[in-house]
Amino acid sequence: MVIPARLKEFCTNVFLKMGCSPIDANLAADVLISADLRGIDSHGSARLPGYVRLWEAGRINSKPVIRITHETPGTAVVDGDRGLGLVVSPFAMEIAIKKAKKVGTGWVAVRNSNHFGIAAYHSMLALQHDMIGISMTNASPLVAPTFSKERLLGTNPISVAIPAGTEPPYVADFATTTAANGKLEILQRQGGKAPIGWVQTKEGLPSQDPNEVQNGGALLPLGGIRETGGHKGYILGSLVDIFSAILSGANYGPWVPPFVSFLPVRNDLVGDGIGHFFGVMRIDAFRDAKEFKENMDKWIGRFRNAQTIDGQERVLIPGDVEREEEIKRLKNGINLDPKVEESLKVLAEKFGLDF
Amino acid sequence: MVIPARLKEFCTNVFLKMGCSPIDANLAADVLISADLRGIDSHGSARLPGYVRLWEAGRINSKPVIRITHETPGTAVVDGDRGLGLVVSPFAMEIAIKKAKKVGTGWVAVRNSNHFGIAAYHSMLALQHDMIGISMTNASPLVAPTFSKERLLGTNPISVAIPAGTEPPYVADFATTTAANGKLEILQRQGGKAPIGWVQTKEGLPSQDPNEVQNGGALLPLGGIRETGGHKGYILGSLVDIFSAILSGANYGPWVPPFVSFLPVRNDLVGDGIGHFFGVMRIDAFRDAKEFKENMDKWIGRFRNAQTIDGQERVLIPGDVEREEEIKRLKNGINLDPKVEESLKVLAEKFGLDF
Repeated sequence: MVIPARLKEFCTNVFLKMGCSPIDANLAADVLISADLRGIDSHGSARLPGYVRLWEAGRINSKPVIRITHETPGTAVVDGDRGLGLVVSPFAMEIAIKKAKKVGTGWVAVRNSNHFGIAAYHSMLALQHDMIGISMTNASPLVAPTFSKERLLGTNPISVAIPAGTEPPYVADFATTTAANGKLEILQRQGGKAPIGWVQTKEGLPSQDPNEVQNGGALLPLGGIRETGGHKGYILGSLVDIFSAILSGANYGPWVPPFVSFLPVRNDLVGDGIGHFFGVMRIDAFRDAKEFKENMDKWIGRFRNAQTIDGQERVLIPGDVEREEEIKRLKNGINLDPKVEESLKVLAEKFGLDF
Repeated sequence: MVIPARLKEFCTNVFLKMGCSPIDANLAADVLISADLRGIDSHGSARLPGYVRLWEAGRINSKPVIRITHETPGTAVVDGDRGLGLVVSPFAMEIAIKKAKKVGTGWVAVRNSNHFGIAAYHSMLALQHDMIGISMTNASPLVAPTFSKERLLGTNPISVAIPAGTEPPYVADFATTTAANGKLEILQRQGGKAPIGWVQTKEGLPSQDPNEVQNGGALLPLGGIRETGGHKGYILGSLVDIFSAILSGANYGPWVPPFVSFLPVRNDLVGDGIGHFFGVMRIDAFRDAKEFKENMDKWIGRFRNAQTIDGQERVLIPGDVEREEEIKRLKNGINLDPKVEESLKVLAEKFGLDF
């Protein structure tokens, strides 16, 4: 078990060694530890060696000058200057929040960025202001659109955070594929089989092999094949791609510079870096915030107390599992996967840090 | 085969008989015929008897005073005064477009409305202004959240329309369930079986019976059961519910007044009518519109020309199927289902109209 504060300190020190400012290093570490605490193990400190790899390859600028390149009262485009998405994204959310204060909502498209960690970290920044937060990003092309053999989309996650009253907030954060890559990695470690609808072979045939994506196969959009609604997952993934990259001027579709090491960066890029999209809506731009929250509490209570299917304990509200995990891990510490721990020790040696 | 203009005239006359103004009657008919032309047969003139039924039950006000009850520069809440959703929704979209012209984007939540027809009619209103249009609505509670026996959500569709340059626009319009109710109705007529993942029994068990929903069972959220990502469909449906109804003050979840005749209206309502949510984003609030469209064309071209899985003709772009169907039907006419034709003849007799 690792104490969260110690793990965060280690991550901060690695980002400092990469040349980040103390404020940026602390923020980036905060985003990663938030994933480790919320149980999204694939997006926490496990990714740290990946960020270092991209920095060493010259793809991450640890001293970015992040700036607005275009704006209206309610919108902005931000150039991330090849910075860590972990740092660029809270900057963009702050702009969205400021704009929402003035005109009701704020929408910010980001280009020239990198992997931004868990989407929910960014959407949740709106909650303390009594605002709804929305975040999304495009990602490494590993997903095949319906009927396609080729991988043209990323897992392109969407997060929406909505304030409630006495209930905890509603916090959704989901990949627009049937299963996120992290779920496949767990099956790879365990030697398990993937359910039908998660992946296809490089010829586009159904498969249950969790290693399919490394072998040229693809993740499937939410819904799986056409008959079970996979074309709707393809729509979701493509909307995230268009909002994140075509509104901002980032790379899209198969041109997105990959985070995963087994894919090359293309030399025919169509934009700058990867793209994100953020939205913030002030609750009281629509309705008295207290009234809204009372109704959110009623909504949450009704769904949480729905009659369950035999054998199921309860109906979950988005965010329940992660919040409960965070309470446990804050108390008991974070249980790192042995392989992740090993990779962090390698980083510690590389940078002459304690681990 | 029915000539579209004749079918539209008939629908207009029925709305006039209900007491709608000539402008409203024409608009409502336009929305319905748009569905009939685009091949969304379940949402076109087939729904006309349903609107008449709700009007006769006093649930639709044919002379609504639609008004803004709350607004900021970028947002508004609209009270539909129990009007036809077919008429209330274009009114709300117009407000969103005006706000987008001023501050970059416009977002309008609507309460006290009724069924709004196809979502894409409304989102597409933004296209001519070089804006992205978004529309969504909550609907009759027929969908069970993951792990729930109870039906707490509607099919809650989302539509997004995005302008392109030389390519036709990207127009997505999809229920947030694995399959829309209309797909089940086709199987009911044909005596077919539904694929696994479409419906569950009233006990929450997997089923392939297309009549399950009439027997107390439920439609499943996009993704089906938990293992195949159904919890993400539940998130999508619940987001539509919250944006449409909790931001606006409409009924939500199991309280939504149903369109289907086999469900009663509850007497413990939590809001006014059903709710919709509309958004409009001006392209040039983010980026030069010409540049954006060139990149949309490149995106569309790349996806359309992706290598297909053996046996599949092509990768589709959202909106392709409906646009091609519209071209055919404008030329050849609309082939009404015999049962629909019969129901329209009944309406013609009731109102003393020619059919």
